[in-house]
Amino acid sequence: MAAIISDIEIARAATKKPIFEIGAKLGIPSEQLVPYGHDKAKISAEFIAAQEGKKDGKLILVTAINPTPAGEGKTTTTVGLGDGLNRIGKKAIVCIREASLGPCFGVKGGAAGGGYAQVVPMEDINLHFTGDFHAITSAHNLLAAMIDNHIYWGNEENIDLRRVTWRRVMDMNDRALRSMVSSLGGVSNGFPRQNGFDITVASEVMAILCLATDLRDLERRLGDIIIGYRFDKTPVYARDLKADGAMAVLLKDAMQPNLVQTLENNPAFVHGGPFANIAHGCNSVIATKTALKLGEYVVTEAGFGADLGAEKFFDIKCRKAGLKPNAAVIVATVRALKMNGGVKKDDLGAENVQALVRGCSNLGRHIANVRRFGVPVVVAINHFTSDTDAEIAAVKDFVARHGAEAILCRHWAEGSEGIEDLAYKVVELAESGQAKFEPLYGDDLPLLEKIEIVASKIYYAGEVTADKAVRDQLAAWEEQGYGKLPVCMAKTQYSFSTDPNLRGAPEGHIVSVREVRLSAGAGFVVVITGEIMTMPGLPKSPSAERIYLNDQGYIEGLF
Amino acid sequence: MAAIISDIEIARAATKKPIFEIGAKLGIPSEQLVPYGHDKAKISAEFIAAQEGKKDGKLILVTAINPTPAGEGKTTTTVGLGDGLNRIGKKAIVCIREASLGPCFGVKGGAAGGGYAQVVPMEDINLHFTGDFHAITSAHNLLAAMIDNHIYWGNEENIDLRRVTWRRVMDMNDRALRSMVSSLGGVSNGFPRQNGFDITVASEVMAILCLATDLRDLERRLGDIIIGYRFDKTPVYARDLKADGAMAVLLKDAMQPNLVQTLENNPAFVHGGPFANIAHGCNSVIATKTALKLGEYVVTEAGFGADLGAEKFFDIKCRKAGLKPNAAVIVATVRALKMNGGVKKDDLGAENVQALVRGCSNLGRHIANVRRFGVPVVVAINHFTSDTDAEIAAVKDFVARHGAEAILCRHWAEGSEGIEDLAYKVVELAESGQAKFEPLYGDDLPLLEKIEIVASKIYYAGEVTADKAVRDQLAAWEEQGYGKLPVCMAKTQYSFSTDPNLRGAPEGHIVSVREVRLSAGAGFVVVITGEIMTMPGLPKSPSAERIYLNDQGYIEGLF
Repeated sequence: MAAIISDIEIARAATKKPIFEIGAKLGIPSEQLVPYGHDKAKISAEFIAAQEGKKDGKLILVTAINPTPAGEGKTTTTVGLGDGLNRIGKKAIVCIREASLGPCFGVKGGAAGGGYAQVVPMEDINLHFTGDFHAITSAHNLLAAMIDNHIYWGNEENIDLRRVTWRRVMDMNDRALRSMVSSLGGVSNGFPRQNGFDITVASEVMAILCLATDLRDLERRLGDIIIGYRFDKTPVYARDLKADGAMAVLLKDAMQPNLVQTLENNPAFVHGGPFANIAHGCNSVIATKTALKLGEYVVTEAGFGADLGAEKFFDIKCRKAGLKPNAAVIVATVRALKMNGGVKKDDLGAENVQALVRGCSNLGRHIANVRRFGVPVVVAINHFTSDTDAEIAAVKDFVARHGAEAILCRHWAEGSEGIEDLAYKVVELAESGQAKFEPLYGDDLPLLEKIEIVASKIYYAGEVTADKAVRDQLAAWEEQGYGKLPVCMAKTQYSFSTDPNLRGAPEGHIVSVREVRLSAGAGFVVVITGEIMTMPGLPKSPSAERIYLNDQGYIEGLF
Repeated sequence: MAAIISDIEIARAATKKPIFEIGAKLGIPSEQLVPYGHDKAKISAEFIAAQEGKKDGKLILVTAINPTPAGEGKTTTTVGLGDGLNRIGKKAIVCIREASLGPCFGVKGGAAGGGYAQVVPMEDINLHFTGDFHAITSAHNLLAAMIDNHIYWGNEENIDLRRVTWRRVMDMNDRALRSMVSSLGGVSNGFPRQNGFDITVASEVMAILCLATDLRDLERRLGDIIIGYRFDKTPVYARDLKADGAMAVLLKDAMQPNLVQTLENNPAFVHGGPFANIAHGCNSVIATKTALKLGEYVVTEAGFGADLGAEKFFDIKCRKAGLKPNAAVIVATVRALKMNGGVKKDDLGAENVQALVRGCSNLGRHIANVRRFGVPVVVAINHFTSDTDAEIAAVKDFVARHGAEAILCRHWAEGSEGIEDLAYKVVELAESGQAKFEPLYGDDLPLLEKIEIVASKIYYAGEVTADKAVRDQLAAWEEQGYGKLPVCMAKTQYSFSTDPNLRGAPEGHIVSVREVRLSAGAGFVVVITGEIMTMPGLPKSPSAERIYLNDQGYIEGLF
């Protein structure tokens, strides 16, 4: 069965089951599902609370080599593996992130998998879905409005309007909003100040929603957000402006995980979607924990390559949520490995075993890195039709020499049938008891030392540099009681280094910390190394120009 | 039965029926309802299309005297009358507007009725509901992003960035966003320009959604939006930027009317909510038309007092949609009439028949005005416990002398039982065949003459003034083919005049047209007379500070 039709056509042709049937597979009574249409539902907070104390299933992380323009298919493999596990008789649930609207209208394709390994309804998932991101946008911007309103009405808290760090957000790629002067136009519009918008996935509210364990925890974290500083340089919290309660009200529904299905009618939780640079890039803790109560296997993914995604999954999400992953899958493609070996995108069609083996250095390092966390690894080769037998053999051979196994997976073209071998291997690893998960560093180390540990052990950097202002800031936070937080590295996703052009497995490079930011509500210190864009722009010819409703009312051009 | 508990407590105590049961009352099969939770649903576009050609029910408009801080209860009366009609055996559907998030966090209470005349679930209706406003925000801002992106990438259309009229929107009261300079920060952020945000209900996309008859019509109107002007002063349309298709995709679900229920389990359509100043202030045409196919009676409301709301309902909504209203209810309260007669808010508790009769001049004029459109009128006195018998008698007497009837209504405290008399009277009027609806002016008159007709016949103004720039602009639009559009008056809602302090029935005043704007997609010319705020601000102590989730997870402080 070859997938010669587009993702959206496959998705549209899918025979979806009513969402109550999917819920029933997991033992969720229909009254505990909050339907959004006939094919999407939220799982009620009440039902989730009632799972407390039940036994957890096995947790499998799907991560990847450093991304390239060739594409790796991490989400596709996550979805495929979920179907594969169900196929071999395991009750498995897929946990992935929600899609951002902004990129849909730019260049990026859908974020719901691909080929015969997709979650559906894909159009909804890629557009408004159940409104979670809109709720996050509203909560974020309510706080922003309350800040400027507080200053306008007399500024009792003495907020230094030059030191307001809370920006606004919009779920749109809109470079015009990156930097602005707001409150112009006279007295009735407030005090002019420098301001700007980030994309919604970059909001700390998004990170908070994805790390909160319940509504109470959510509200507490929202209150902990630092919105800026007073003239005396003390932090001002969202709680000081009494914004936390109303923000939690706006997020009440968004906190409930979303249930959808794969093309093979297996359950998938699609919930949350923080950026993987200035945030931790994982789906929500509440979705993952709920899935662990309901399934024997939970397959989840983390953003970007394993240097960013897996490290943050382990050091932030698992550490904070007390999760113990049982195995990890590292996704690679022959094409992406060849690009890591120096092949240009236009030349990927030709067999090139030599470049491939060179590029495997990238994969090899990710294997070693993931093992450092005490988690056993298997490599999934996400098959492309242009892959040659020699190339696949070379990858398998390379991985075997690193003491792991690489398994060819054809889920994109064949669905679960094409990924059975990987599913069996994952079960073998997970049930072997090999996993001895430990975060990379302890809570009690100084913040700078945590950065250095990630840089040296994961990035293979030779040195971390940070000027005095950064060091002083870290020290100040330690004094204020934030020293036990993990660090959230914001680095280019294209390289182990901070230079996006250094593919493969660079080492000895310098990681220069440009800036640090405190996400006190989310509970991590963001470490910025290089240019990090928190509000993307649209390309010259954005995909929005080609998106429309066809005569049957179906959406065209979205993917 | 006295309503001594709050609106939210009443709403929370309501015994809601599953939304599929409410739909079944109207003959909507469950598969044609798109559920949002168990108590809200959208009605599928397919089902709506299938109603084509069926007989229409009777259309009843609920309007009001000029609003005062005392409150009139127009939505409450609309909901109550719907229940009252059902009580006396008529299959009636209520059609009201959706609530904006912004005011919820400012000072305004809920927008879902009050007392025992409410639509539920009121928390949802007042917060994210089914996401329609978020979809409108997204569609509006996608167009905005595409404008700046077009300019950034070479500006092929030669858009004059000083003449971009399309702003951005947010569903929030945020004065800091009214006026700004965007695209600061260097080359990669675009060309700096003056910019700003309106609240979402002020978006032309909102007006378009509320006037569009189906998705095709929606897309056409979106394409007709004028986003600004070229250096040669020719208009640039959303279609020129190829934004209309993607905007329609974002609005696909939002175009489907929302079904909820009243406290008495009668059907209510809550859909759309354009501003009643710079837009036409009515719920969606598609909801009203669909309700007319499914009910014997459709009770709908229009924003502000009858001078703005009813006039626009008749001259814009009914004209464009071919609706023929059968009767109108003008809501008044003794308190508001006393305020119109000069009583201060703090003195409203005391009986004051003299002031009341003075204030009735306001009511008298609205009665005459509505009749001018060929629609028979009844007055609803929305009862307050402080009303005295003498005061009620005085209103009834005044109205009788104007050849109509005023009926005391106790729906707020008693539900449908308290509004039976009004329901019977409405049926009598609607079935009398008296209604001979005609808009106030013909399509073919010059735009300025249309303004003059509204000003003289509805506002009783002595004169309309407009400087040369305004007159030239109107003439230019007539030349460009926009002369047949109706005018949409943006005037203070507090007075027949443009001075909010002139209560009662002023006459001979001057209406000064400050500015005119073309809403080419919505299909009207906005005529601005006085200060019109399209982005509200928050008060010193916004209600957001008192909104939170209580220990049971219920929302407190919203109302």
